[in-house]
Amino acid sequence: MQLKIQRALASYPFKQTPHHLYEPIRYILSLGAKRMRPQLLLMGCDLFGGNTDAALKPALGIEFFHNFTLMHDDIMDNAPLRRSKETVHKKWNSNIAILSGDAMFVQSFQLMMQVEDSLIKEVLDLFSKTAIEVCEGQQLDMDFENQLVSIADYLHMIELKTAVLLAASLKIGALIAYAKNDDADHLYSFGRNIGIGFQLQDDYLDVYGDDTKFGKQVGGDILSNKKTFLLLKAMELADAGTLKKLEDLLYHEKDAEKKVSGVTTIYNQLGVQDHSKHQMEFFFCEGMKHLDAIKVAEQQKESLKSFAEMLMLREN
Amino acid sequence: MQLKIQRALASYPFKQTPHHLYEPIRYILSLGAKRMRPQLLLMGCDLFGGNTDAALKPALGIEFFHNFTLMHDDIMDNAPLRRSKETVHKKWNSNIAILSGDAMFVQSFQLMMQVEDSLIKEVLDLFSKTAIEVCEGQQLDMDFENQLVSIADYLHMIELKTAVLLAASLKIGALIAYAKNDDADHLYSFGRNIGIGFQLQDDYLDVYGDDTKFGKQVGGDILSNKKTFLLLKAMELADAGTLKKLEDLLYHEKDAEKKVSGVTTIYNQLGVQDHSKHQMEFFFCEGMKHLDAIKVAEQQKESLKSFAEMLMLREN
Repeated sequence: MQLKIQRALASYPFKQTPHHLYEPIRYILSLGAKRMRPQLLLMGCDLFGGNTDAALKPALGIEFFHNFTLMHDDIMDNAPLRRSKETVHKKWNSNIAILSGDAMFVQSFQLMMQVEDSLIKEVLDLFSKTAIEVCEGQQLDMDFENQLVSIADYLHMIELKTAVLLAASLKIGALIAYAKNDDADHLYSFGRNIGIGFQLQDDYLDVYGDDTKFGKQVGGDILSNKKTFLLLKAMELADAGTLKKLEDLLYHEKDAEKKVSGVTTIYNQLGVQDHSKHQMEFFFCEGMKHLDAIKVAEQQKESLKSFAEMLMLREN
Repeated sequence: MQLKIQRALASYPFKQTPHHLYEPIRYILSLGAKRMRPQLLLMGCDLFGGNTDAALKPALGIEFFHNFTLMHDDIMDNAPLRRSKETVHKKWNSNIAILSGDAMFVQSFQLMMQVEDSLIKEVLDLFSKTAIEVCEGQQLDMDFENQLVSIADYLHMIELKTAVLLAASLKIGALIAYAKNDDADHLYSFGRNIGIGFQLQDDYLDVYGDDTKFGKQVGGDILSNKKTFLLLKAMELADAGTLKKLEDLLYHEKDAEKKVSGVTTIYNQLGVQDHSKHQMEFFFCEGMKHLDAIKVAEQQKESLKSFAEMLMLREN
C-alpha cells in the first residue's frame, strides 16, 4: 500500500505557479514521511473488501490535510526542523507557510471529495468535523503552556490533536467500502484508542528514544517544558522536595544537557515510564476490543493488528 | 436580504471552547461588514426564482470564507486595523489568528455543504476551485511587491484575489436555484467583471476617497508602495523626469504626508484617475452584457443592476 500511495502522490498534478504557493507544498510532501494516515485509510477500505483504488484520492487528501497542519503548527511552534530538514517557514518565510498551508488545505478537500456521489456528504461531514477537532486540539496544546493541566485534560487534548485523524482515516476507508455503520464506528474507536496510544508513545520516545532512530532531538519536550503524560505524571507522583527540584529544572536550568538529564533522572526515580507504558497498553487493549467487535473474518484483521502493534513497538 | 443574513449569522451556533479558537471568529464577524458576498449569493438564487432560505447556510459559508481570508491576509500584511478595529493578530497574536482562521475555513466548508445532496458536488467544486484561486491571487499580490508588474498582470491578480469570489457567490446562488448552465455561467461572468471593477474602485478610493467615509487611511496604498492600477498607469504614462520624481517619492520620501500628496499630484498631472474610471466602466459594461444575456424577465434583474451600480458609485 505504501507503494500505491507513493505512486498516487507522484502522479498528483502539482501546479507550478505561483511558485511560492505551490513549491512549499511539493517540498513538505517530499520530506519522506511514513504516510501512516493514507495507509490507514486504504487498510480501512481493504478490511471490508472495498476497492482501494477508489480510495486513493481521499487517502492523498488525508496526507495533504496532515501536512497542512504540520506546516501551520511549525510556524506556531517556531520549529526549525521537520524530519531533519528545514521547516517551510524557515526555508521561505511565515507568510508563505501560512498561505501555502491554506492552499494545501483546499486541495485536501478537493481530494477528499473524489468519492462516489452517494458518499460525498458522509465523508465530508466526518472529514470536516475531524478537521475542526484537530484545530481544537492544537489550540488546547498551546493553551496548556500557561495553565494547570490534569492527565484527563492532556488525554483529551491528544485525542483531538492526534487520535481523531487516525480514527477518521480508517473510518473514511470503511465508508468507501460501504461498511455497515456499526462496523465503521468500531473501526473509528479502534483508531481513536490506538491514536492516543500512538501519541503517548511519541512522548515516551522523546525522552527514552534512541536519537539515531528518532529523527528529532531527544529531550525536546523537556527543553520546551511541554506538558506531556510523563511530566504530568511526575508532578502527580512527586513529593514536595522532588516537585521543587523538578520545577527548578523546568524554570531555572539554562544548561540544556543538565535540564534533560536532571528531569529524566526524576522520571526514572518516580518510575513514570512504567506508568506511561501501562497507559499505552490500556489504550492499545481498548482499541483491540473494538477491532475484535468488527464483523469480518479474523484473518482480514491481521494487517491492522500488526500495524497497531508496530505503532506501539516502534522506535521512531 | 441584509436582515436575513444578519439573522442567520445571529443564530449560528458559535462554539465556546477552546475560547481562543472561537472568540476571534465571533469577533471578526462582528466588525460590521457590508455582507456583500452572501447578499450576492442570495440575489443569484433569487434571480432564478430559487428558495433563498435554502441558500442561507451557503451564504454564511461565503462570508465565513471571506473573513477567514481577511484574518490570514491581515497577518501577512501586518495590518493593525480592520474596519477601524484591531485586527485579530494584534488583539490576540499571530498564532491565534492562524489557527482561528483555519477553523473558520473548515466551518465555511461545513456551511457550504448544506445544500441538497444532488448539488453538493457542483457547489463544492466551484467553491474549492475559487478558494484556491483566492490563495493564488494573494500570493501574486505579495510577489508583486518585489517585481516588475504590467497592467495585465495586475488585472489578472485582482481577478483572482477579489473578483472570482464575487462571481462564485452569484453562481452558487444560481446553482441552488437550479438555473440552466448557460445562465449560471453568464451570471458568473457578470460577477467576475463587476468584481474587477469593484477592486479598481477600491484602489481609486484609497487615493481619492473621503477619509470620513472610507474607513481606512486614505493613501494607504501609496504609503506601502502597493502596485495598484493607478501607480502602474502612472509609471506607464510618465516621462523620464516624472518617473524619476515618482520613484524618489516611493523609495526615498520618509514623510508620510509629503509622500501621499506628492504621488497624488503626479497622478493628477498624468490624469490616471480618468484612465482608472474608464477601465472601471469597461468592466462594468462587460459585466452588464452578461447580465443582459441571462434568460429571465428583465425586471428580475433590477436588483442586481442597482447593486452593481451602487458598487461602482460607492464612496466606501
